[in-house]
Amino acid sequence: MGAVQSSPLVLTTADACFIPAASALLPPRASSHVAKPRSNSSLSGRIRRVDEILEPPVSKFTSPVAQNPIFPRCLALKCVRSEMEAKNDETAEKPTLGFVEIDQGLIDQMVYDALVWSSLHGLVVGDRNVNRSGKVPGVGLTHAPFALLPISFPESQFREACELAPIFNELVDRVSLDGKFLQDSLSRTKKVDAFTSRLLDIHSKMMEINKKDEIRLGLHRSDYMLDEQTKLLLQIELNTISSSFSGLGCLVSELHRSLLSHYGETLGLDPRRIPTNAAVSHYAEALAKAWIEFNNLKATVLVVVQTEERNMYDQHWLSSVLRERHNVRSIRKTLAEIDAEGELQPDGTLLVGGVPVAVIYFRAGYTPNDYPSESEWRARLLMEESSAIKCPSISYHLAGTKKIQQELAKPNVLERFLENKEDIAKIRKCFAGLWSLEDPHIVGKAIESPELFVMKPQREGGGNNIYGDDVRETLLRLQREGSEENAAYILMQRIFPSISPTTLIRDGICYKDHAMSELGIYGAYLRNKENVIVNEQCGYLMRTKISSSNEGGVASGFAVLDSLYLT
Amino acid sequence: MGAVQSSPLVLTTADACFIPAASALLPPRASSHVAKPRSNSSLSGRIRRVDEILEPPVSKFTSPVAQNPIFPRCLALKCVRSEMEAKNDETAEKPTLGFVEIDQGLIDQMVYDALVWSSLHGLVVGDRNVNRSGKVPGVGLTHAPFALLPISFPESQFREACELAPIFNELVDRVSLDGKFLQDSLSRTKKVDAFTSRLLDIHSKMMEINKKDEIRLGLHRSDYMLDEQTKLLLQIELNTISSSFSGLGCLVSELHRSLLSHYGETLGLDPRRIPTNAAVSHYAEALAKAWIEFNNLKATVLVVVQTEERNMYDQHWLSSVLRERHNVRSIRKTLAEIDAEGELQPDGTLLVGGVPVAVIYFRAGYTPNDYPSESEWRARLLMEESSAIKCPSISYHLAGTKKIQQELAKPNVLERFLENKEDIAKIRKCFAGLWSLEDPHIVGKAIESPELFVMKPQREGGGNNIYGDDVRETLLRLQREGSEENAAYILMQRIFPSISPTTLIRDGICYKDHAMSELGIYGAYLRNKENVIVNEQCGYLMRTKISSSNEGGVASGFAVLDSLYLT
Repeated sequence: MGAVQSSPLVLTTADACFIPAASALLPPRASSHVAKPRSNSSLSGRIRRVDEILEPPVSKFTSPVAQNPIFPRCLALKCVRSEMEAKNDETAEKPTLGFVEIDQGLIDQMVYDALVWSSLHGLVVGDRNVNRSGKVPGVGLTHAPFALLPISFPESQFREACELAPIFNELVDRVSLDGKFLQDSLSRTKKVDAFTSRLLDIHSKMMEINKKDEIRLGLHRSDYMLDEQTKLLLQIELNTISSSFSGLGCLVSELHRSLLSHYGETLGLDPRRIPTNAAVSHYAEALAKAWIEFNNLKATVLVVVQTEERNMYDQHWLSSVLRERHNVRSIRKTLAEIDAEGELQPDGTLLVGGVPVAVIYFRAGYTPNDYPSESEWRARLLMEESSAIKCPSISYHLAGTKKIQQELAKPNVLERFLENKEDIAKIRKCFAGLWSLEDPHIVGKAIESPELFVMKPQREGGGNNIYGDDVRETLLRLQREGSEENAAYILMQRIFPSISPTTLIRDGICYKDHAMSELGIYGAYLRNKENVIVNEQCGYLMRTKISSSNEGGVASGFAVLDSLYLT
Repeated sequence: MGAVQSSPLVLTTADACFIPAASALLPPRASSHVAKPRSNSSLSGRIRRVDEILEPPVSKFTSPVAQNPIFPRCLALKCVRSEMEAKNDETAEKPTLGFVEIDQGLIDQMVYDALVWSSLHGLVVGDRNVNRSGKVPGVGLTHAPFALLPISFPESQFREACELAPIFNELVDRVSLDGKFLQDSLSRTKKVDAFTSRLLDIHSKMMEINKKDEIRLGLHRSDYMLDEQTKLLLQIELNTISSSFSGLGCLVSELHRSLLSHYGETLGLDPRRIPTNAAVSHYAEALAKAWIEFNNLKATVLVVVQTEERNMYDQHWLSSVLRERHNVRSIRKTLAEIDAEGELQPDGTLLVGGVPVAVIYFRAGYTPNDYPSESEWRARLLMEESSAIKCPSISYHLAGTKKIQQELAKPNVLERFLENKEDIAKIRKCFAGLWSLEDPHIVGKAIESPELFVMKPQREGGGNNIYGDDVRETLLRLQREGSEENAAYILMQRIFPSISPTTLIRDGICYKDHAMSELGIYGAYLRNKENVIVNEQCGYLMRTKISSSNEGGVASGFAVLDSLYLT
């Protein structure tokens, strides 16, 4: 979603910290799957680890890279071992996939091979140091940041996450049909969040004219973290708009398989334990099937893009597969261009530059930044009014908001949308603690122990979540002011994933550090008036982030693309 | 060879001009395939055309790009039409593949698609504006410069060129075995060219110790131009060392096929008329077969590289296919590194960093610049002394020099090396006029009409050829000085290829101009003591260069990778 879309360098996996699980302090939840309190021994074990990780501060670690626009050549391909990592060598866990036990020469060789592989196989992004790299394809390319090896992940939880995808797909569809539920749930948010308010206005207009989309396409990605202590798979968020990295994510799985096919024997790793990842093929197929449903041979797929996009190759991979394998063309337009070039025909057909549009695929429009003027909102309304298949429709978009995520976590709400009790139980099991700020009990808890919560604003775009002492201060301010601004946030339990020694490569430079990972599972859903045509899990995305914490306890550092190794 | 190796931006196709064919002025040659004098009418037609092309000077045309290190964004993806091109619209020929008759919107769309395709499929080089791009893979990437569409080329001449490959392969092998011929032919060159002299020294040493390479591997590329008037295929040079672009060249053929599969119908072009180009596969297979001949499972392929190489991805493609398809590993070392890390075992096995070397594949070592100190010459000698299969051996390297090319063009010399009369006739047919400066008659002609000749120094590296008035001045100086320096050059007939309106893309910017092309045909040859194991034509490389001429009449501008469309 927003956070991970605008730049491959903002791969947020921010919903984590390195302190004991919140569950011990939390009120009973509707589900029986609440994380269990940790024993003192494991607790103290964790705390000791955190102390180590907290020093030196992250700024020291990132400075040689972050402060130099052209990175020092001497660092290239020489793995930079942070002081922190060196300190932790003795105490760190030693998983098979970490760097601790791998010979440095072998790592250098693998890094070199991986960088070559990335260049030859299109695992690339626009280089932020090159001006035109977000506008013109083919120039200012650099490899996408990636982890050298896949992260180990328990097979059962991976399967569990995959099984959830079709249920979430259906849930989104059902919720999207309940316009009143969306409007009611978001009514307080509407008052304090201008962006959500504009989306709701469009949604209201569609309700007023009783516009129904009979063909509905969803390309979602549900993001999870694995709680280290309980091994529970907990959902971070559900992206219903602009789910990114289906293209590059597949490539990283391939890269890792290629590396293990050459080095696996030496490392004692089996490339077949990296699950097949065909996210981009499935996404392309779903788009193609939607195009077929639209039933106009002259029509195109309209990809709504930002004016600058350094992650364009991820998008181009999808368009390329769509064209090469399904012979469906796509055009790329910004919201402003759609406002300028778009028109509705009397039958509702959207023409852009005279070309009819079958499917509108949004890779922009999820953040207020994408709507700098009324022009962009006119474009969004125009598209919503059209007969084109929106991916997502305004209803799907709203169904993926954090407030709706929190509403769905309330007792007995899932039951309004799903019948199958097993499905409901499966979904509920993956919900972390989610609360509205209207709950004085939980607000009190959060002021008391802010480190156990994340405050999430409705607003998208990444980097907006509130952590640590800022949670307390913000909550106290909101209480003092007694304003309705509290409706702009939800509170979420912070999740405690395991951290492992990891080798991360960015800008041709290799870093060894402790990192945590977030698993995304892609889902595709397509239906027409009569039938569900597609409802499937499509592949996965692993993102790994350096787990260095600054003094506020907030996870920071950069994130990279990764894949997983089933254990 | 040297000229095209060091940077993808130096794709020399310099042996051409835009004035009448030299053949009318030349003495009778041994072959009956000399270009016929042109009729007056065609001559005047050509001259008129040249006048048009000569203005405005090329500096005006290239200035907006060449003088700005970060190219103006407004130029990106907007085809820059030179004044010259605009002027020529009415008079220019209108071949199917030119830009004249193609709608600008369609060209823009194709350029965009082509740039995306290049990024996703590894048609990339290091960006000269990024410091680390020649050292670290994965950073500072940009698309390789390419022509938007293939160049039309007559099928019969293409087949002819393909048929020549195995004959040239065999010729090189035979010549390489005649040490005395090499030494004698190059004896005068040796006195005035230090580089050739050092190569000959190594060659002499090998003769002294009677070292014979029983397994011999050649990966050659013979470069041709098609004389416009006579439609004769004339050889420019035969590369026996470091024949580049087998990797990227194949990709350009694929790029063009992909474009024609989408736009061919609109353009009236059939993608099947682009010949299959499997150069990189054949090269990899030949290297793998050589590796098998060496018969040491622990041995590697040693790729000798320059310290900086922006064309590294072309090389990586070859290594990658070698590894993925044949499971043969390669290591990359500079000559200095080989000097430092290399050692010979008593049985002649070359170890580099302790790893035995089966095949030495040179992508460096063809230019004096690659030997800045004695260290590099020690490495070259060490490799030559080893039992590793050299690609090329010092003999193969010498057999590809310009002086040997000129010697082979003398009457009755080919007959010393080849028996088959048909083969001899085929080879002779492709020889342009080639002369030693010892011939006073031809020197007189060249002083009289310098525009009809190219003076080629033995020295490699590109940009060293002498054209136009400089030919006259250099020849007069050599006459005055009466020195032996004339042995450092050969004289070659200048060739007059056809020029066509072409769309060229470099740095994400599209240029429309008139351009001429050079066809390279790859050949692979492998034999052991008993048998020829491989002797084949492997694929092709088309390079297209803006044909703008400066006041000296020298072809200049930049060259791009291209493919061909059989007519």
